[in-house]
Amino acid sequence: MREALADVPAGALVLVACSGGADSLALAAALSFVAPRARLRAGLVTVDHQLQEGSAQRAEAVVKVAQGMGLEPAEALTVTVGAQGGPEAAAREARYAALTEAADRLKAETVLLGHTRDDQAETVLLGLARGSGPRSLSGMAARSGRYRRPLLDLPRATTVAACQALSLTPWDDPHNEDHRYTRVRVRRTVLPVLEAELGPGVAEALARTAGLARQDADALDEWADSAYQNCALSDIGGSIKVTVAEVEKLPDAVRRRVLRRAALAAGAPSGALSATHVMAVDRLVTDWRGQKAVDLPGGLSAVRRYGTLIFAISPIA
Amino acid sequence: MREALADVPAGALVLVACSGGADSLALAAALSFVAPRARLRAGLVTVDHQLQEGSAQRAEAVVKVAQGMGLEPAEALTVTVGAQGGPEAAAREARYAALTEAADRLKAETVLLGHTRDDQAETVLLGLARGSGPRSLSGMAARSGRYRRPLLDLPRATTVAACQALSLTPWDDPHNEDHRYTRVRVRRTVLPVLEAELGPGVAEALARTAGLARQDADALDEWADSAYQNCALSDIGGSIKVTVAEVEKLPDAVRRRVLRRAALAAGAPSGALSATHVMAVDRLVTDWRGQKAVDLPGGLSAVRRYGTLIFAISPIA
Repeated sequence: MREALADVPAGALVLVACSGGADSLALAAALSFVAPRARLRAGLVTVDHQLQEGSAQRAEAVVKVAQGMGLEPAEALTVTVGAQGGPEAAAREARYAALTEAADRLKAETVLLGHTRDDQAETVLLGLARGSGPRSLSGMAARSGRYRRPLLDLPRATTVAACQALSLTPWDDPHNEDHRYTRVRVRRTVLPVLEAELGPGVAEALARTAGLARQDADALDEWADSAYQNCALSDIGGSIKVTVAEVEKLPDAVRRRVLRRAALAAGAPSGALSATHVMAVDRLVTDWRGQKAVDLPGGLSAVRRYGTLIFAISPIA
Repeated sequence: MREALADVPAGALVLVACSGGADSLALAAALSFVAPRARLRAGLVTVDHQLQEGSAQRAEAVVKVAQGMGLEPAEALTVTVGAQGGPEAAAREARYAALTEAADRLKAETVLLGHTRDDQAETVLLGLARGSGPRSLSGMAARSGRYRRPLLDLPRATTVAACQALSLTPWDDPHNEDHRYTRVRVRRTVLPVLEAELGPGVAEALARTAGLARQDADALDEWADSAYQNCALSDIGGSIKVTVAEVEKLPDAVRRRVLRRAALAAGAPSGALSATHVMAVDRLVTDWRGQKAVDLPGGLSAVRRYGTLIFAISPIA
């Protein structure tokens, strides 16, 4: 916690987002200990998702615990969860919207989240199942905008032990036992099988993979950004032109990122633009046999005219 | 198969390495079909590991099948498996040594291996459990030196179906049911649980991840190679000097690869040089507080002297 907050200026407000579960309860306790010694103000917010019987009372109980720890402000944020993208995604979206609103209103310098190494391992496995490549293996960042995750290198067992040592009673979210959620199945079934069959330390290995994959993806994005500047030209009409002679010199991983950027810059919706689309465009560069235009999402197409790839609203005149 | 052999010059010899299992048996059949039409010569080698009762007879049976397919030469290669690195690694080493020897002796242009998408998925999971980052997620290459893996994008079910359709009877290696082997446990237990809990298509997603991770790792290695040329200097005594001002400009992923290269170039044994070692050296760059020398395997150490990192046999005078 001290390391995580080392660069926060004295007097600033640090909020901890706390569900009442062991992870974020231990995080709140750590913050309440460190903040006064680091000359920081420390507060707590807890989100009432209104999805379970008694959720309002639970949120109030968390606020009480926070007050007992000397965290001030301590607030319950009540949200209404929609349905878009499935129950987990909708709850997450509502939660982050409320946290961001509270952080703005309370002028918090940073908001701490209680994700542990075990959460990270679960996230990596979920990303692996999507198969969308190293970026989806990067898991969660230790820092992302105003959010920080000080416990990301610690196992969940440590937060449980911390709560016991401090006589704090964590709330066990019944959702954490609901096997309709993919993440719950990963936690309760997949990871234990991996540990049993591949040996202990799998969660740690997955979390380590996440860190390395994130660094790799960041470096390649940096390379692709500068390569894109070199070989892409934005037209007045919104179309993007890419010089084949420039992109074809790049390694596969960078060239495909550049082509993806070009498609996005021309207006392809990022959610709909798949690796298969990018591969088809790539063949206009690496396997040019006079192919026709490649259709892309968002009514776009990519076509090669001599030494230039053109990403534009189709049809191209 | 046609695509995999498109660049092999007419008249050249292509060998298939065949255990008699469904994957490599289907591969042999495909080669026997494609080779004459592509004006290639096609042969088969099968390795007798001498680890099971009757292995010599089985190898002879595979040779017979090959002769029936018109593959010529068709040879059984008898090897003696040592113990180093565990039974799987020792068998693999003996097998590849025999294949390479046979390819040299028979002047084969390329040797085909029967690994499928399912093998690739297993390899990725094994790499994931090691947690040594994206390179270990890259799985097997479709081409590596003289070896090619034409079936790497196909599921195992396709090779089984091909053998059935061709009335070929594959050999079921009893080792494939021996749960003392980690790979067998991955195949029989881990992957089925992943498919059941995360949805079908996990093997495909893992294989796709492997391909993307390999491209990424290749691109970053290329970057690291050129960065290393820029900032590292090899001394007469075998020590390596790295200019801090140059490496500190690099993104994390590239800088750590450069530092790893420097340690290897100074003589650190690659098997013993861990990510933890590299991280400690990295802190001499990114978190310089006058630390002492960092001990590295192979009796080396890395020390910072003003703006230079020196990798040398310790102690440094």
